[in-house]
This record gives sequence, C-alpha cells and structure tokens, in this order.
Amino acid sequence: MPMPAKAVLLVHGGAGVINRDSMSSEMETRYTTKLGDALIAGHKVLKAGGSSLDAVVAAIQVLEDSPLFNAGKGAVLTRDKRIELDAAIMDGASLQAGAVGAITTVKNPITAARAVMEHTEHVMLIGKGAEMFLRDIAKKIGLTLVEPDYFMTPLRIEQLEEALASEKERYGAASHSKTAHRKTRKAVGFDENKFGTVGAVALDQSGNLAAGTSTGGITAKRYGRVGDSPLIGSGTYADNATCAISCTGHGEYFIKHVASYDVAARMKYLKEPVSIAAPYVINTTLRECGGFGGMIALDRHGNAAVPFNTPGMFRGAVTEDGEVSVSIYCD
Amino acid sequence: MPMPAKAVLLVHGGAGVINRDSMSSEMETRYTTKLGDALIAGHKVLKAGGSSLDAVVAAIQVLEDSPLFNAGKGAVLTRDKRIELDAAIMDGASLQAGAVGAITTVKNPITAARAVMEHTEHVMLIGKGAEMFLRDIAKKIGLTLVEPDYFMTPLRIEQLEEALASEKERYGAASHSKTAHRKTRKAVGFDENKFGTVGAVALDQSGNLAAGTSTGGITAKRYGRVGDSPLIGSGTYADNATCAISCTGHGEYFIKHVASYDVAARMKYLKEPVSIAAPYVINTTLRECGGFGGMIALDRHGNAAVPFNTPGMFRGAVTEDGEVSVSIYCD
Repeated sequence: MPMPAKAVLLVHGGAGVINRDSMSSEMETRYTTKLGDALIAGHKVLKAGGSSLDAVVAAIQVLEDSPLFNAGKGAVLTRDKRIELDAAIMDGASLQAGAVGAITTVKNPITAARAVMEHTEHVMLIGKGAEMFLRDIAKKIGLTLVEPDYFMTPLRIEQLEEALASEKERYGAASHSKTAHRKTRKAVGFDENKFGTVGAVALDQSGNLAAGTSTGGITAKRYGRVGDSPLIGSGTYADNATCAISCTGHGEYFIKHVASYDVAARMKYLKEPVSIAAPYVINTTLRECGGFGGMIALDRHGNAAVPFNTPGMFRGAVTEDGEVSVSIYCD
Repeated sequence: MPMPAKAVLLVHGGAGVINRDSMSSEMETRYTTKLGDALIAGHKVLKAGGSSLDAVVAAIQVLEDSPLFNAGKGAVLTRDKRIELDAAIMDGASLQAGAVGAITTVKNPITAARAVMEHTEHVMLIGKGAEMFLRDIAKKIGLTLVEPDYFMTPLRIEQLEEALASEKERYGAASHSKTAHRKTRKAVGFDENKFGTVGAVALDQSGNLAAGTSTGGITAKRYGRVGDSPLIGSGTYADNATCAISCTGHGEYFIKHVASYDVAARMKYLKEPVSIAAPYVINTTLRECGGFGGMIALDRHGNAAVPFNTPGMFRGAVTEDGEVSVSIYCD
C-alpha cells in the first residue's frame, strides 16, 4: 500500500533488513496491525482537536507498549543485560523540546521526554538524575513507573546472547551462535538487533507540528551508549517553519550528519520541499557514507515523506479523513 | 586586542555578563594568561605538524586544568553537590565524533570524548556506562583518572550554596543569600554561575579542521542534565567542507536551534562565509529568542569568527606565525 502524499500523522517502527521472504504473513499482520493501532490512536486525538504533541504521544505509546518494537516493552538489551531507554519530543510551534537518555523505570519513555520539556528548564536529562526527577514528579503528572523487568522479553534476551556469541566467534572463540542466529532471524524476520526504534510526527488542526522518537538503542550496546533518537537535530526535530521528523537507523551516522535538522536546513535555505529534502538526506548524504536507516517527515501543509535506504521500514500514515496506510517493504 | 581575521587555532573560556567594572585587573590577567597558555600549547602542536585534533586537545587540557574555567578542575556543581562533566570532540576530515556526558573521574574530559571517538563504534557514552568503559581503557591509552573531589573548589561550593539560597529566597524562605551573592559576584567578576564552558577549534597543516568543547554545565543543574556542549551539531561541530565550531552559553537554546550545525548549514546551502554565518546564528537566530552565549568558528582557509551576544566572552586566537591575541569584553 503506497503512502499517501498528504497526511496528518506518520509513524515508523524501525528500518532494516526486512525482506518479504524472511517474514511470515502472520508476523506481517502483527506488525501492520500494531502500526495501524498507533495511527488510529493518534488520529483520534487530532480529530477531536487535540494537539500534535498529544497525537505523537498517543501514537508512540501504542508502539512502546507492544513487544514487537524496540522501544518501551520489548526494547533490546545492553551488553550487560540491562534496559536503557532513550526518547525525545519536540514542539514545532515553540521549539520547546525534551529528551531522556538511559532511563529504566518509566513505562512510556515518550511521556518522560515530555515531562522534561514541560516541567524543567532543561532539554535533556539522563541516567540516574533523570530517574530521580521522573520518580519525584510521576504522581503529580501521572507518569506510570514500572520495574525494569517489565521491559524485558525472552526474544530480546535470546538476541543478546546471540549477539555476544557472534562477537566471540568473530574473535575465534568456539560458539554455536551461527545456528542460533539463523533461527531467530527467521523467527523475527529481519535484523532487528540493530534497528526497531519507533517514532511519530503529527500536524494538528491549528497547523502545529510535533515529532517524537523512542528507542531501546541497539542490542549489546555498551552500557551508557546514547544514539540519535534523543538528540534534538539528529534523530528528532520539529519546527513549524519547516517540518517534523523522526529517524530510525544506525544512530551514529544520523548524529554525525545531524540528519533531522539537515532536512529542515535544506528546506529553509535551499527552499527544497520536504519530498526532496528528506529523501536527499537518507538516499544521498547518509547512504554515501554507509549510514543505513530511514525517517518520517511531515510539513505544515501535510506533505509527507518516508524515505529509507534499507530493504524495508515499518511505516504508516493516516490522512485527515482517517484513511490508514501501512507498509513494510520497498513498494 | 581585536581578534585577527585569520588564525590556526581559536579558544574560548565562556561567555556571559563579564563587565570591565566588575573584574579586577588581577583577575583579568589571570584569565588572559591562561587563555594565552592554551593557545601556545595548541600552536606548538600545529607548528610541529601535529593534527588539529591533537591541537584542540592540547589547548582544552590547559583550560580544563585551570580552576578559573567551568570545565575539568573548577567545574560548577550540580544541585546535589556533585560534579558531572560533559565534553565532545569532532574531526572535520572524517566527521568522526566522540562525546561523554555526566562523567566524574577522568581528569581531562576532552580526552574521554576522544577515547569514545577512537576506541568505540559509538559517538556518545554517558554516566556510569561511560565511566566503566573509560576505567577499562584508561591504562591502555593513558587516560588520567582522579577522584571526583579533585574537580571541586571552594568557590564552586560557595556558588552552589548561593544559587540554592537565592532560589529559596525567591520562593519566600528567609536567607542571607543576596549579600553572599554580591560578594562572590565581585570576587569572580561575572556571572559564571551560568557560563564558563571552554572550547577550541583548530586548522592543521594538512588543511583539516577539528573542534572540541568541555564543560561542567550550569551551577545547581538538576543531576543528569546534559547541555549543548557534548551534543554534536549543537555545541560542537566540525566538517572540513564548512567549519569547526565550539559554543558556550545557555545550552538549551543552542540545542533547540542546533546552533553549531546551523552555521555549517548556512555556509553549505546559503554559501555564506563563516564571518557572516556564525554572527548571524548568535546575533539573530539565538538573540531573537533570548538565547545568550557565543561561539568560536574557523573555516578551512583559517577565516575566524568569534561572535557573542553577551557583554563579554573569554576568547583568543593564534595565527600561523604564533601571534597570540586574547580578549574578554566587547571591543
């Protein structure tokens, strides 16, 4: 199903080596259904006259709550079998932004990012300090706290073990990781060890844009690694004057190329429409240096772009009228 | 002393409310001498044919080691009387970058950022995870580790107490903070509670640019707050195709406007020279929304810009021939 040229809300659930022949139709259905649920949740907010920020949060929460995606429940594990979640949100009307890095106890990290934006004078809080603030404010603003175990799923534990075994194998130690690796690759259907971030961008009835991104990072990441998702201008950006963007992919490349702000800069300075600027950054700037991934981008007139330079990207759009489209592969 | 139009190395030691009438000539001399030392240390590297990365590290280490600046020894304290140091470095030739957030035991945080760039596949490591990696690799690569107490100075403890008392006063509790505040303001000579980040940008004989920034953040910051300094594209950026930049100021504004990459984007897309692009971002984009601070910027031909929208910025430049200039106020 091709994406519509116009939309009020876009979501993604990660980009990567997602091939038709390695994905069962049952898995396809599970992913597309959940992306559709996220779009419907966000659309409901917008249709009722809610803000683009509320719509972004509503859509992302659905994806965070699903173990299918690498964000919230079902996030990938760090090298030492921990969960560290990153998220960011940005308001295109005010340029206010909030981000969290390496948090472990807020059920929906996107709501934690929003709490930083709305209840501190800072943009980014990380680690234990962020946790302290979030625990303090949780009751007052209705943040749901959970034990870190809530986020862990058997599949992610298995993927971590494989990743570590595969590393060991590469350095010469004996291991059976290859077989195990193949097994899970087949079960999951794509290389979600590396990708699977979720994100949303929305345009509300007042013409305001917002963007949000949430992720568990990459499997077996070094404890303390922060990718592009919570970095304003890299994985997440929104400005009514240009567009709202959420990225997914090999974060380090998106950081070095300041990928999401680069799209905004091309629109602002080169007067490129979002349909040219976003694909350029993904298919030329990033692709040329081996930076794999994709992004969703929406401008103030509802023009949508969903470029990716990987075999697939979980993505979806909903129009003002509530028409939902969801895609996985390169159409 | 006006800055030269051409340079091979620029440094800054923070921007803020730095007025001639509140700064003793003895303090002035201490600051200008240390900035000069940093420039000489970096110039020595460049003159010997060393890389711009090495020069940036050499210059920043001098400023980190001095208790005068808010980086390394003498960094400001968090709300709960802790030290949390952030730093970033970027190589304009390869776009490789490294950053650390909220670290507490590496004597020179700029060397920690470089270790992340050169010895991991990540760009950013934060908090405890970063510490674990840095401790593991310290011996192998010659990182100097210290106890967190090393960084603390009596002045910074006093400033924290004043900041907290002043907050309390604003909310109605009795306190003697005002007198204390005046006392220290006079002793220090400017509002370095807020600013005082250090940074360097350099151009080596091979024509390669590099940028680095190091900071303790802002006094009484919420534990876990990350400002713009360690964020690639916000406080630090380098690309041979455009320029090398290090920022200082109210970090949250520099994050939301992706300030350092915005200069690069203006150069790349609007074809503005660095002497136009850098002042535009500081004096128009940031100033218009109340974002105070400054930056140092250097392009591949040695064209230098040192814009700031505060009353002063500690800054300095050295030319290829080793001519050193240092300034504090608006000349």
